[in-house]
Amino acid sequence: MIKLSNFPIKTLKSRPKISDNISTWILLQSWFIRQTMAWVYNYTTLWLKVLRKIENIVREEMDIYWASEILMSWLSPMDVWEKTGRQDIEEYFKVPTYGDKFYRLNPTHEEIVVPLMSEFINSYKDSWACVYQIQTKYRNEKRAKSGLLRGREFLMKDAYSFHLTNDEFEDYYEWMKKVYMKIFDRLGLLQDTYITLADGWVFTDKYSHEFQVVLPIWEDDIYICDKCNTSHNKEVVDLENWFVCTNCWDKNHRIEQASEVWNIFPLETKFSKPFWVKMLDENNHEQDVLMWCYGIGISRLMWVIAEYNMTEKGIDWPKNIAPADYYIIVIGEENLEKANEIGEKLELKWKTVILDDRMSKKIGFWQKAWDCELFWIPNRVVISPKTVELWGFELTLKGEKTELVKF
Amino acid sequence: MIKLSNFPIKTLKSRPKISDNISTWILLQSWFIRQTMAWVYNYTTLWLKVLRKIENIVREEMDIYWASEILMSWLSPMDVWEKTGRQDIEEYFKVPTYGDKFYRLNPTHEEIVVPLMSEFINSYKDSWACVYQIQTKYRNEKRAKSGLLRGREFLMKDAYSFHLTNDEFEDYYEWMKKVYMKIFDRLGLLQDTYITLADGWVFTDKYSHEFQVVLPIWEDDIYICDKCNTSHNKEVVDLENWFVCTNCWDKNHRIEQASEVWNIFPLETKFSKPFWVKMLDENNHEQDVLMWCYGIGISRLMWVIAEYNMTEKGIDWPKNIAPADYYIIVIGEENLEKANEIGEKLELKWKTVILDDRMSKKIGFWQKAWDCELFWIPNRVVISPKTVELWGFELTLKGEKTELVKF
Repeated sequence: MIKLSNFPIKTLKSRPKISDNISTWILLQSWFIRQTMAWVYNYTTLWLKVLRKIENIVREEMDIYWASEILMSWLSPMDVWEKTGRQDIEEYFKVPTYGDKFYRLNPTHEEIVVPLMSEFINSYKDSWACVYQIQTKYRNEKRAKSGLLRGREFLMKDAYSFHLTNDEFEDYYEWMKKVYMKIFDRLGLLQDTYITLADGWVFTDKYSHEFQVVLPIWEDDIYICDKCNTSHNKEVVDLENWFVCTNCWDKNHRIEQASEVWNIFPLETKFSKPFWVKMLDENNHEQDVLMWCYGIGISRLMWVIAEYNMTEKGIDWPKNIAPADYYIIVIGEENLEKANEIGEKLELKWKTVILDDRMSKKIGFWQKAWDCELFWIPNRVVISPKTVELWGFELTLKGEKTELVKF
Repeated sequence: MIKLSNFPIKTLKSRPKISDNISTWILLQSWFIRQTMAWVYNYTTLWLKVLRKIENIVREEMDIYWASEILMSWLSPMDVWEKTGRQDIEEYFKVPTYGDKFYRLNPTHEEIVVPLMSEFINSYKDSWACVYQIQTKYRNEKRAKSGLLRGREFLMKDAYSFHLTNDEFEDYYEWMKKVYMKIFDRLGLLQDTYITLADGWVFTDKYSHEFQVVLPIWEDDIYICDKCNTSHNKEVVDLENWFVCTNCWDKNHRIEQASEVWNIFPLETKFSKPFWVKMLDENNHEQDVLMWCYGIGISRLMWVIAEYNMTEKGIDWPKNIAPADYYIIVIGEENLEKANEIGEKLELKWKTVILDDRMSKKIGFWQKAWDCELFWIPNRVVISPKTVELWGFELTLKGEKTELVKF
């Protein structure tokens, strides 16, 4: 139980307008985040609770489909980056150590996961294999972007799968799509999420896939076919001519602004070749290992969820990722014990509880009710001299009317 | 349930002797860890399970005493380090960005937590306050050390408390000691843990306190008084003269090798002064805020636990931090369904399970039993044609005799 009397949080009366989007103002107002420097943030306790809940949803769904969670190093030696020709990318940080030496502060982990997994992947019997991690990544970004959307440090779920054949991968990819759709469903984003064809970046001539969430203020334009709902990133649409859907060849479409929260890149043999990672096939022939990578920007996803659920008053978190399930407002020292009891009973039912036991005169009922609303805790309990006189407490479940519950 | 048929792990027949301590060999042999470069490691799934369990024990105990978990940034601007005069410490990484600018890759978080908390700590009503985080830290270490004992990147729990008066701190510190003793108790280290007087480092003329675990191969010598059991780090013992206990003035002592897993530093006003962080006392006078910091090296603690519990065969994990509770060995395809059922039943009882369903001919009973022992999973289930003939499975609970359990 979080007891606010001993909890460092100070909500603000007004919204600090220091970023270009309103959800950031609200997060600053509710003391959920504080900036260390541009695009680099501290997370306070309640925001961290939201983060951990999102992380766990991602983890649970990944584990169901036998992806194994690991945790790779944050630093790596430069020589593995020289092998793949990615030693001089400006957006990747290099960290000087003693002498003329540098380490890489990892922006992504292909160069680390391939040598690691090469020990395991030797024959067709070891295929497929998939590992993932949830870890901070670093980029030396030039482009400023709204809040946590594009940061210099960010939390990623990055998964890497290893396959002998393309067919095997196609099957695996269909699973992964389901995993991702389930994640988006649990996070309340599914109905506005589009699987979008995009450029394969430096990795391949083929298209890559992005999961885009439609949001009015974000970075990408996506073209959604009116007929089959297939979505295309602006970058792969031939803008000089008419839009034609790559799936059904229809020309009618709408354009929406959206934010990418997931991508999949076909890495093919781009990373297995430089590290000489091969698999024996069933005929005992050596084959280059095929690789795919799948990202979810966890901190970006948090931001998208905040923006997506923003209202006039605060952020209307989906129930399963709210900072807590219940907020207990207690008025009058004499009711503290009873309030504590209610909190403990809720915890026995596996509910998480914030007990607002701040008893200073400055923090009365309205301040507490206001904080509860600002944090947008879905369910509220009020215990005060008035309710105790009626032998009970007030309970307001999310979206329902307030009722008096007898002790 | 972890199913080994789809799980990337390859244990080795022998121990790679690439470090100076045997627990590292065992962790490499069991594929729990792999090196990216000197003193920088990847953690595979089973080792990560151990890590998360240790992390959660620390978190649970900290939360009980109202320390609030937050998550601060990994990068910070150099100007906050200039304020405290710590901008040029060689062991602290600087990361070049565009132009002549650098960021700090944080080795510790005083310079970040003080500005963050200054917004909250304004008057005696806000005292005390304590926040902590569990986060990767970075050091540009020169000294090579055994395994994860001293790494270039490591996981730390760092807590910071803020107080108006020394008396208030003394009370808080007594709580913290209890929290730490409870943590060491749950991790099975209590009986060999000593609170040790040590040098105050750069922070203060006073002593600081370390929690040292007695282990034969580690870095510090501690002097334990025979009479009152008070422990002293070698660095604070006047070696030119006789040892005299600072507590009871006795001269009889024994010397043990030990490893530091926790320290507390009295930061006093060293960090609040440069950031002008003040609190109003009850008489409305401004006072410099007093600070203390409390560290636990989580990755170091893992290593200490591994070393502490090392046996001839593997690492005898304390039950509550073993990678899993049960290991199910299944022999014969026809018994897979039954094995799966047993696993699911155990999971319903909140037990974690590894199901060894590898069915290749190369991996027979002995390989499976060997891996189970190497991972040191406390409880073992065997289901094979032999046990099925007797209408049951073999169950070996840790430290108990094998018995046949009927279906």
